Amino acid sequence: MIMVSVDDHLVEPPDMFDNHIPAKYKDQAPKVVKQDDGSDVWTFHGAVIPNVALNAVAGRPKEEYGVEPTAFDEIRPGCYQIADRIKDMDAGGLLGSMCFPSFPGFSARLFANADDKDLALAVVKAYNDWHVDEWCGAAPERFIPMGIPVIWDAELAAEEVRRLADKGVHSLTFTENPYTLGYPSFHSDYWDPLWKACVDTDTVLSIHLGSSGKLSFTAPDAPMDVLITLQPMNICQAAADLVWSRIPKEYPSIKIALSEGGTGWIPYFLDRLDRTYEMHHLWTGQNFGGRLPSEVFRQHFLTCFIADPVGLKLRHDIGMDNIAWECDYPHSDSSWPTAPEELEKFITSVDPDMPDAEINKITYENACRSYSYDPFTTIPKEQATVAALRQRAIGHDVSIKSSETGRVQHSGEGISLEQLLKEAPAALVRE
Amino acid sequence: MIMVSVDDHLVEPPDMFDNHIPAKYKDQAPKVVKQDDGSDVWTFHGAVIPNVALNAVAGRPKEEYGVEPTAFDEIRPGCYQIADRIKDMDAGGLLGSMCFPSFPGFSARLFANADDKDLALAVVKAYNDWHVDEWCGAAPERFIPMGIPVIWDAELAAEEVRRLADKGVHSLTFTENPYTLGYPSFHSDYWDPLWKACVDTDTVLSIHLGSSGKLSFTAPDAPMDVLITLQPMNICQAAADLVWSRIPKEYPSIKIALSEGGTGWIPYFLDRLDRTYEMHHLWTGQNFGGRLPSEVFRQHFLTCFIADPVGLKLRHDIGMDNIAWECDYPHSDSSWPTAPEELEKFITSVDPDMPDAEINKITYENACRSYSYDPFTTIPKEQATVAALRQRAIGHDVSIKSSETGRVQHSGEGISLEQLLKEAPAALVRE
Repeated sequence: MIMVSVDDHLVEPPDMFDNHIPAKYKDQAPKVVKQDDGSDVWTFHGAVIPNVALNAVAGRPKEEYGVEPTAFDEIRPGCYQIADRIKDMDAGGLLGSMCFPSFPGFSARLFANADDKDLALAVVKAYNDWHVDEWCGAAPERFIPMGIPVIWDAELAAEEVRRLADKGVHSLTFTENPYTLGYPSFHSDYWDPLWKACVDTDTVLSIHLGSSGKLSFTAPDAPMDVLITLQPMNICQAAADLVWSRIPKEYPSIKIALSEGGTGWIPYFLDRLDRTYEMHHLWTGQNFGGRLPSEVFRQHFLTCFIADPVGLKLRHDIGMDNIAWECDYPHSDSSWPTAPEELEKFITSVDPDMPDAEINKITYENACRSYSYDPFTTIPKEQATVAALRQRAIGHDVSIKSSETGRVQHSGEGISLEQLLKEAPAALVRE
Repeated sequence: MIMVSVDDHLVEPPDMFDNHIPAKYKDQAPKVVKQDDGSDVWTFHGAVIPNVALNAVAGRPKEEYGVEPTAFDEIRPGCYQIADRIKDMDAGGLLGSMCFPSFPGFSARLFANADDKDLALAVVKAYNDWHVDEWCGAAPERFIPMGIPVIWDAELAAEEVRRLADKGVHSLTFTENPYTLGYPSFHSDYWDPLWKACVDTDTVLSIHLGSSGKLSFTAPDAPMDVLITLQPMNICQAAADLVWSRIPKEYPSIKIALSEGGTGWIPYFLDRLDRTYEMHHLWTGQNFGGRLPSEVFRQHFLTCFIADPVGLKLRHDIGMDNIAWECDYPHSDSSWPTAPEELEKFITSVDPDMPDAEINKITYENACRSYSYDPFTTIPKEQATVAALRQRAIGHDVSIKSSETGRVQHSGEGISLEQLLKEAPAALVRE
């Protein structure tokens, strides 16, 4: 098995801007500050962004999961140090990885806070240069590089996409819903320059769950489990918003990934799209030039899953070219370092005779094609397998170990959304 | 085939309160008023509630679907006259039907508007008495009677459930989320008297999509199709909220129906529940006494669908005892009068060899068992089939015909949510 993950996460290291921010903005760039409670937070333009434990629990026992802010010395170095990350990837059997940002938010909306938009733009560019040149640059054959957007300006966003494409980048992290972030919606023509740049450069809009700025909130006294269950399911809102929007109609080659969105709900969703079209298009006026909305979806969307036996079972109803696996390292939904074994277990339970050609599409081929990523010119396939990579990681410690600082919450007592919003900072909402 | 629908709708006729409201409240009871634009609206305590066309389009061509307010003479008499309804049920091959309310909202929140809570209670009781004695009472063997709740008071709500149970009622329409309606959430102990009454009387909480008081709103300029696609999917929020709540833990025999919620998403949702439990219960403290949340779901929930081939395909992953068909007459998602043919087409496409025993569970047995509904003491099974009922309806006109008033919007030009909220009244939000 060869495994490429279209959704992992990096925790930005404190020195990330040092080599990339212009000298005149050095003092104003985002900075890491140690807090009185021992946690490390990023600060920018008055905002304080902690790193919440749940988002960096790789290698920790589940009893130590929680929502408290963390410090760099409490999380696995693979979260934020590239050399350690590559070792962790080897140990997890992971050939390639696309890494979403942490502290800026999935659509880097934090940087839009700066009143000085030249500063904001410089920070976005510095972030992207660090990501491409240092993070992915340490081993380009191991990463699908991804840009963060200039979320406050469609023209500048388009320019940055074109600049990044010249550096070999074909992925842009974007929001599930620009409207809820305070910008024009997917139905506006405001974003046309950006969509055009994406199409021209074969750049995929990578839309991560939880990037709308809105929690799946039912009630303040609801237990956390409600939020955890619903947050990925919420991405169907972005899927519906985009399918029915003018974007696929006007940009026939645009590509969109629903990152961490799961796959098992897609066949139901496709039926629901077509039913809506069949029952209502005569009065709503929807027109895809004779195509059904389910065909539109299959043409434009890549769906992504961590652990989703139902999606594997329904893979032909989704579309064999529309499914990509993801690891989600180092978040709490990930099964690193045994994610390959987990996937194998699900495949066996669903269809022990699943053809290798189908497994390959899901574990790496769809990801490679969608993101214009070709690791095999550097790493021959026989050296790219889970087994071969793990050979390279012999001696690297991946055992589950408690944090040594003693700061970690050993809970098991439950937490409501109300407590959470009080105790844990706004950054828990990943966007 | 025998077909019992667990989700249809009635449009309340103008004279509904005449026989049931105490004399002293006669003047203050809800009333139908003809508007200048020709539409008929219900009025109560300052609120004006039109009947939106989409909610009563049975028998109309799809080109005439729309969101404008309607008048009684523009909608099919089967919407609001019981004798015509029964003929329409015969023509549609429908043995039994459970009818949700229209103008009061799914949880009758309209009646809570009255400052005089004695008046409000009298209206709720009069509504329920009309529903049971006149609507269902015209042919008790053809209906699953359903009460509306006293939404503003859990003790009174419990009393009304017990009063209705004495009249043979085992269904209560309730909201997807009392918190968003301004009441304590499903996680509060406020509702305990009501849950206890439901358990004591074997009354099912029938939770209809769109009853949270919140639209599936992505952006004001989103086309209507987005809302139509998402509105049913939104019910997963209620499902998650209820599964993780104290209700199934404290009331082991409580029964909940997710009305019009669809079924194709359920297997994915069940996996998501169990994954959330597996990855997080050690810190969130969730404890179902050794059961998995998917088992909790299957024990307590009835799922309902209009047209859902994916759900039929995954019926064993959902649970053969957890699925009930529904017709949704006279709403725009219904295929009346050819709903039996539609279901047959889906069954054939999914599994032409589906055993009769499984089909029967879905088309009527699960509904009958869940709602303590037994029509067969009055109507022998051979007279209850689609074919037998249609024999009785020969000569009854069910052809698709244009409205004759000329008021109906012939559109096809599309409508955005923004236009909708401006042009169509708040009642479009069914709750």
